[in-house]
Amino acid sequence: MGQPSDIEIARAATKRPIQEIGAKLGIPAEQLLPYGHDKAKVSADFIAAQAQRPDGKLILVTAINPTPAGEGKTTTTVGLGDGLNRIGKKAAICIREASLGPNFGMKGGAAGGGYAQVVPMEEMNLHFTGDFHAITSAHNLLSAMIDNHVYWGNELEIDLRRVTWRRVLDMNDRALRQVVASLGGVANGFPRETGFDITVASEVMAILCLSADLKDLKRRLGDMIVAYRRDKTPVTCRDIGADGAMTVLLKDAMQPNLVQTLENNPAFVHGGPFANIAHGCNSVVATRTALKLADYVVTEAGFGADLGAEKFFDIKCRKAGLKPAAAVIVATCRALKMNGGVAKADLGAESVEAVTKGCANLARHIENVQGFGVPVIVAINHFVTDTDAEIRALKEGVASLGVEAVLCKHWAKGSAGIEELATLVAELADRGEADFSPLYPDDMPLFDKIETIAKRIYRAGNVTADQSVRNQLAEWEKAGHGKLPVCMAKTQYSFTTDPNVRGAPSGHSLPVREVRLSAGAGFVVAICGEIMTMPGLPRVPAAQSITLNEDGNIEGLF
Amino acid sequence: MGQPSDIEIARAATKRPIQEIGAKLGIPAEQLLPYGHDKAKVSADFIAAQAQRPDGKLILVTAINPTPAGEGKTTTTVGLGDGLNRIGKKAAICIREASLGPNFGMKGGAAGGGYAQVVPMEEMNLHFTGDFHAITSAHNLLSAMIDNHVYWGNELEIDLRRVTWRRVLDMNDRALRQVVASLGGVANGFPRETGFDITVASEVMAILCLSADLKDLKRRLGDMIVAYRRDKTPVTCRDIGADGAMTVLLKDAMQPNLVQTLENNPAFVHGGPFANIAHGCNSVVATRTALKLADYVVTEAGFGADLGAEKFFDIKCRKAGLKPAAAVIVATCRALKMNGGVAKADLGAESVEAVTKGCANLARHIENVQGFGVPVIVAINHFVTDTDAEIRALKEGVASLGVEAVLCKHWAKGSAGIEELATLVAELADRGEADFSPLYPDDMPLFDKIETIAKRIYRAGNVTADQSVRNQLAEWEKAGHGKLPVCMAKTQYSFTTDPNVRGAPSGHSLPVREVRLSAGAGFVVAICGEIMTMPGLPRVPAAQSITLNEDGNIEGLF
Repeated sequence: MGQPSDIEIARAATKRPIQEIGAKLGIPAEQLLPYGHDKAKVSADFIAAQAQRPDGKLILVTAINPTPAGEGKTTTTVGLGDGLNRIGKKAAICIREASLGPNFGMKGGAAGGGYAQVVPMEEMNLHFTGDFHAITSAHNLLSAMIDNHVYWGNELEIDLRRVTWRRVLDMNDRALRQVVASLGGVANGFPRETGFDITVASEVMAILCLSADLKDLKRRLGDMIVAYRRDKTPVTCRDIGADGAMTVLLKDAMQPNLVQTLENNPAFVHGGPFANIAHGCNSVVATRTALKLADYVVTEAGFGADLGAEKFFDIKCRKAGLKPAAAVIVATCRALKMNGGVAKADLGAESVEAVTKGCANLARHIENVQGFGVPVIVAINHFVTDTDAEIRALKEGVASLGVEAVLCKHWAKGSAGIEELATLVAELADRGEADFSPLYPDDMPLFDKIETIAKRIYRAGNVTADQSVRNQLAEWEKAGHGKLPVCMAKTQYSFTTDPNVRGAPSGHSLPVREVRLSAGAGFVVAICGEIMTMPGLPRVPAAQSITLNEDGNIEGLF
Repeated sequence: MGQPSDIEIARAATKRPIQEIGAKLGIPAEQLLPYGHDKAKVSADFIAAQAQRPDGKLILVTAINPTPAGEGKTTTTVGLGDGLNRIGKKAAICIREASLGPNFGMKGGAAGGGYAQVVPMEEMNLHFTGDFHAITSAHNLLSAMIDNHVYWGNELEIDLRRVTWRRVLDMNDRALRQVVASLGGVANGFPRETGFDITVASEVMAILCLSADLKDLKRRLGDMIVAYRRDKTPVTCRDIGADGAMTVLLKDAMQPNLVQTLENNPAFVHGGPFANIAHGCNSVVATRTALKLADYVVTEAGFGADLGAEKFFDIKCRKAGLKPAAAVIVATCRALKMNGGVAKADLGAESVEAVTKGCANLARHIENVQGFGVPVIVAINHFVTDTDAEIRALKEGVASLGVEAVLCKHWAKGSAGIEELATLVAELADRGEADFSPLYPDDMPLFDKIETIAKRIYRAGNVTADQSVRNQLAEWEKAGHGKLPVCMAKTQYSFTTDPNVRGAPSGHSLPVREVRLSAGAGFVVAICGEIMTMPGLPRVPAAQSITLNEDGNIEGLF
């Protein structure tokens, strides 16, 4: 077959100057802040000036539960954006930024794949426009100011054992997960246990992605709870006096980044919060800006639809007042076969039966998304090994739900391979069928919100939690946080909390181990299983093979 | 009087697009990588293509020992650059980048002052083009890889007690000076003591500033010693396999940044190593690039001439093969009065006698710089409170040394206030009097190098050091590091190690407490006194007043 590798395709791309890409959306060159010749930020002033324009149509790309077979959600987001442009629509895509640290653990990165990618690929997987570095700085400034406050007399009476604010680095560094800081005597402060998370896990990241503008950003930063007193009353970032300086550090990072697809169509790449302890979507600012400038905006949510789409709807859309017009659920025959019980090693062999069986997982996600009032199309992301019979089985498997499944070959052919999907998605969005509403109302009690998600989305039979968890939720309700949405932190591989249970299980029990309050981001996190917020490096980290070759090209990153 | 504040002047500046500034030096727009409209990196390809061009003349701006009165070294560097352009010369300046962290402790920052500044001032004191963030990432990647290596079996047999490589953040955070990391059990590694320095103290910073190109950078990064085994043999960054990935992370940061002065003249702002445990000069790449593109390049060194100029000559010029054509030593009447025994509170009153007495400090620096074969002019950076008699005393104080002292009013008048100095400096440089040579040869034993600096520059009577220090130096000589220059870490306020001894003391004793090997940067650090590599925040950090005002302007940073 011999399609070149993703990086070979990306390097062979003919990029247009970023000002030309901006011009496609009507952004004047002086309102673009360039970072090199192929990346730019859209100025906050320009964005503010578009407020009265009508919005384009918002299309969510989500997926079945991820499997090791790969689904290609980002690839399909990019392909669909290119496809819409190909059929004459004014379309833009909105995706998340990549975290730098993990690229030095496992080879990875990339934004899309094959002939449906966003470029410049290397920069996007390294420092890009510095947004994550700005978040690291802002987060750690607050950390330093908390210990500094205690050092100089602790006027706020912070209980040193109850400092919940940690530090962050955009690095896979397990040695920093748990540390004792402030050792070395009087001049270095009061020793205490603390630790580091990876930057994408910072509440500052979630806030940057949910804030409407700098003013909203500052308010949310101020609201963050960083510690508690002995009497358990909270101490906020605003009490520490860090909200203003953090806003200054994030001023540029709040402006969305514009890059381009391989086909020179506009792509906003902005923000990248964790998809478990946070909501896992690109920034509200980027999505809103794209909606003002394009007629169709294709965006994606993290993980499968049970986690990603639910959070996109219940957190991002609810809070930002977004009304999605359509959703695309990405599936592959391979992934459905795994959901139908086939092991990864056996994916090469045709198995119509397994596809049909695996469709139960897809069907569940379709129903769930439809439950939000958003009409659905399925994108079958084509793999060269798919057989006609398997594809037919997949199409038939969803036909009973009144949903179309469209074969897409964007990975191999770019926009030429996804025209049909683009046409159908545009028609669907244009019909105005969508009648979006979140799953639960703001004023439902917090525990009931968790139960609602568990039962309606995961189809769990019940939710279990220690009394301490229930008490904590009740306390937060008393303190005025009861109207917040809930952000579920659960394995992405299953509707249950067991990553090995594929398909469409129901009646299981969902244990909530712990709850956390992200008062600035504006959600309560319900933790259902082990959540790792600081990854480690593998035995042979990718970093050992990453280098510049004689041509000055980066090797080993992809 | 009512001159506006530095930040008011900077904000009122009429900046030209950075492409116009580049054009003044013959840099085509496509060879500039813009960061916004007023900052750019000069592409490595363009720099490589200039190799065969002749060099312009290099002019060092240095100063007397700093006092709380302020000397204005950067202001004079900027002013002289503008002055040279004003009199029709093609001139550029080269200065260091600012560290972000300390700005959130004390109000500060700024690049120059009054009408002799570099802009954009805010960005230069915040993230700028991300160079320091890249250094932080590269440094901490190595840190993570060291602990990861031990975690997965420690094939290199690193002695955990002898890991010398720490972590860095660009933040004033005393709580991180000394920590115990890898707590929490098996999954988090082997607990050990370590700590964080501020990013500018990283050896990676020193290396970035001394490397000729990416190849040289990678070699030097590989040479860094990060730990020792139980048998005390060193483990390098190359052994860990991090040099390639670190080079990739530093690829963009290696390209010098171009900005502009208030008068729209080109300014290279690149790199910012500590001036005590490192050499305190902007990057070799920036200086060399400026020399290829301009006829006169004005640059500065850290602290007073005893530390800054000595390191500029003995480390940077020696290693990069630079030949300075002239040096400007900046002095003020106020600072000389303090060197002559006047307290800061009494600086308002005229004291010709104190100026004359303080001239001993200036004279010592003049002699020292002349000792390197570099001709000297003194710049009297004018303060509005200076009296004519004081200025006369200053001029007379140096006339006996055959050196001119020129009154400069660039702070109040920009280039119009520094024409005379510019004219004289250009003439001096053009005369070709300079016959630069470093203070000591490469093959002098390390301890003798320290003694030579102590006796010839500081005029110390003797150098004291424990036998362990002498043994350490001897070991390094045996290991092949004997030809390295020495980097002195000593208080900047005095020729002695006592910051309170101003003027021109001699015959004192210089105690060397400790020596450190920066094998990648290529120098041996001799530590003579307390050196703080991770600052703390003050009781009321500037961060508490830093915020965005209603106009979107940054308040409290300056």
